[in-house]
Amino acid sequence: MKDTIRIELIDQLGADKVLTESGLKERYNHIWRMDKSLQAKAVVLPTSTKEVAVILKICHQHHQVISIHGGLTNLVGSTETHGNEVVISMEKMNKIVEVDEKSRTMTVQAGAILENVQQTAAAKNLLFPLNFGAKGSAQIGGAISTNAGGLQVFRFGMMRNLVLGLEAVLADGTVISSVKKIIKDNSGYDLKQLFIGSEGTLGVITKAVLKLMEAPKSRNSAFVAFDNYEKVVQFLKYMDSGLAGTLSGFELIWGTTYQAMTAPPAAAKPPIPHGYEYYVLLESLGSHQEKDHAVLEDLLAQAFENELIADAALAHTEADLTWFWTIREDVHVLKSQCQFDHHFDISLPIPLIGEVLDNLNQELKKLEGVEKVFTFGHVADGNIHIVVDRQTTESSLIETINAIVYSPLQAIGGSISAEHGIGLHKKNYLHLCRTSEEIQLMRTMKMALDSRGILNKGLIFDLSV
Amino acid sequence: MKDTIRIELIDQLGADKVLTESGLKERYNHIWRMDKSLQAKAVVLPTSTKEVAVILKICHQHHQVISIHGGLTNLVGSTETHGNEVVISMEKMNKIVEVDEKSRTMTVQAGAILENVQQTAAAKNLLFPLNFGAKGSAQIGGAISTNAGGLQVFRFGMMRNLVLGLEAVLADGTVISSVKKIIKDNSGYDLKQLFIGSEGTLGVITKAVLKLMEAPKSRNSAFVAFDNYEKVVQFLKYMDSGLAGTLSGFELIWGTTYQAMTAPPAAAKPPIPHGYEYYVLLESLGSHQEKDHAVLEDLLAQAFENELIADAALAHTEADLTWFWTIREDVHVLKSQCQFDHHFDISLPIPLIGEVLDNLNQELKKLEGVEKVFTFGHVADGNIHIVVDRQTTESSLIETINAIVYSPLQAIGGSISAEHGIGLHKKNYLHLCRTSEEIQLMRTMKMALDSRGILNKGLIFDLSV
Repeated sequence: MKDTIRIELIDQLGADKVLTESGLKERYNHIWRMDKSLQAKAVVLPTSTKEVAVILKICHQHHQVISIHGGLTNLVGSTETHGNEVVISMEKMNKIVEVDEKSRTMTVQAGAILENVQQTAAAKNLLFPLNFGAKGSAQIGGAISTNAGGLQVFRFGMMRNLVLGLEAVLADGTVISSVKKIIKDNSGYDLKQLFIGSEGTLGVITKAVLKLMEAPKSRNSAFVAFDNYEKVVQFLKYMDSGLAGTLSGFELIWGTTYQAMTAPPAAAKPPIPHGYEYYVLLESLGSHQEKDHAVLEDLLAQAFENELIADAALAHTEADLTWFWTIREDVHVLKSQCQFDHHFDISLPIPLIGEVLDNLNQELKKLEGVEKVFTFGHVADGNIHIVVDRQTTESSLIETINAIVYSPLQAIGGSISAEHGIGLHKKNYLHLCRTSEEIQLMRTMKMALDSRGILNKGLIFDLSV
Repeated sequence: MKDTIRIELIDQLGADKVLTESGLKERYNHIWRMDKSLQAKAVVLPTSTKEVAVILKICHQHHQVISIHGGLTNLVGSTETHGNEVVISMEKMNKIVEVDEKSRTMTVQAGAILENVQQTAAAKNLLFPLNFGAKGSAQIGGAISTNAGGLQVFRFGMMRNLVLGLEAVLADGTVISSVKKIIKDNSGYDLKQLFIGSEGTLGVITKAVLKLMEAPKSRNSAFVAFDNYEKVVQFLKYMDSGLAGTLSGFELIWGTTYQAMTAPPAAAKPPIPHGYEYYVLLESLGSHQEKDHAVLEDLLAQAFENELIADAALAHTEADLTWFWTIREDVHVLKSQCQFDHHFDISLPIPLIGEVLDNLNQELKKLEGVEKVFTFGHVADGNIHIVVDRQTTESSLIETINAIVYSPLQAIGGSISAEHGIGLHKKNYLHLCRTSEEIQLMRTMKMALDSRGILNKGLIFDLSV
């Protein structure tokens, strides 16, 4: 099959970097759908920023729509293709270019795998604190373009806070490069902000300078139980103050979800008995294992005495830490208890979480076709994950569930996506948390940077109203 | 003098909110130039976002250039006017709308004074950590539009990290409002980033939701002396690791500057003797005054034993803390020792600071017309302030000094402005730290959001090349 674009791409990059037709059989759109071959005009595998620029120039000239592929771990349909796209896969641009221990920075190509970045930092006694389940596949470029979060955002921030320098290629092939190791830069517009969290719709990220921290010398965790949500908020303030800057994780799990995580068919045993309304798993990263353990123990004892908490279990060993955190991180245990698992990732003001989630739970459980509702999340960031156990794939049920979860967010100034982004799947609900003026301004920016609308077309919003 | 714009403004807002001609006599452009009357077509004093939108609609329609005035404390000529501008002064929009202790947020109008915000937070046992000399005059809107920094950026970040929600009015009067208390929001483009640090060229900030922290329960500081810069970098890593999350300040002062700060005519006495190459003033904010004091003391003792540091003085009392920090913060002591003080605010990779500043110092001191050079700054952020004592105001000398300071930054990936911004005064040097593609992209954004170029015209870059 002849095609000018494919011919030009092969001409400029060489045939080994341009996969077409039979070359696509082994490729896929998402790590959860490896069985389904990817549909695209071509998959291009650049090895340098220059090659990315060449690809974009060709596609721009031909008004060719592009889909940017990283680790294919997104949860909102961002890497779906239908056959007409040129896919740019960043997998060959996976080098860690430099670790600078004194500047505490790491310079990486966009295709570098998150787990490699973490391990490379750790080998130098440094920490790259971004961490989430898909770290073994997720690429840094994807994590930046989706402003990824995870388990330690409370202390270290989301990806936006961890990027010092950035290089990206605009839709027309212009390279915007600022691969700098400096922490502060008020010399004009902070252009990297355009590319962080815009889901690849404004440019293709090719390189980044990441901020590293000194590796912590201690890690302590505890599970804590509560009778009501009001006390969870009080306890967050209490621990944040008492642990000063060392509090790094504060995860909330609702009682029924805790039970599902710590009773058969789940393998884990409960660190604290079942039966409480709420459970918090907290973490501190400090400088001295025994001293920090004692500080945490004292704080918990005092909280118990003051009836702020109903029960607590402190991790005493490395094995305890693994046990506690596996409970929180093994979302598969919940998925396996669902017929069809339907995921949410909402953001809302912290004091309102208890009441709003109570109402959501009640509303959802009233629905025919909904069996279970699991709720847990990064409560110190106001970010709650909901997994709804659906019995069918009927679109009317899906829409009803979405409406129940999303509707309350508008009135309370929440967001339909704290971490995962909008992609294709949440596009229809964007207006619930962004004003029409905001969405119009997004369109203005898209038109200014990618007037032909070729980059990750259709993600977040449509150009035409 | 008749003028359509003035007539329309008075018609829409009322005469008491539109100052013209004799009404301008008592007004000025900068807090350091109160003796010089402001030149402008009118000064408008809106009291609401709606009124700001009305003003912008009128000005947009007439292609009327606008200068936005906050606390008038900037250091780069950003609020200079020449007579043709309509000045929007935010001084009447100075309300603190709400403090939410549980969400740990404060909602304020843009004209709220930084010091009021700090004190309002403190009264609720919370901390708003942005802090700098001009806090008694500086407004939050200005601090946001310049992405202000200060003394505790190392731990808490610059203004960009402290803004959760933002409301701004575009050049054409469109209100972009997202006054939310949520910490995470990945629902489409993070539009507030457009207005943070863009020096009022893309919109007029009218309201913000600020992030607050629990107030620290302890504060400890020490002055430390070093024989060479290499050890300063080692010590930063050592203290950052040893103090875990509590290290909040790490200020470097060069030996000769320390002497100027702590010997007559300066009033302060030196906490450590003169004669060392470098001095660091560090701060930890923690949870327990005595325990944290002991931790810092132990760390310093060990550092001394290992010959990492040459000398140290720990603050033992509240009076010591005041003494130590007054030395660092009283920049007036340096200014008073200059004929004409010429200020810089550069950013560079931390490991290179010692060598680059040594060279700068030597080069500057060779110049006829330069007597003294003072160097100090937020070294943990890679941000150094330089004050050059010039004997004349000759533009050729000014340009020579600028060239010496700015030239090395390009090759090492530095920035000509870490904190203060570009404004008018540094515009000619912007190309030294931003590529032509970057500056062109800034123009693209400006054209997309303010195609008539009316907002803070001429700041950062010119629209026409």
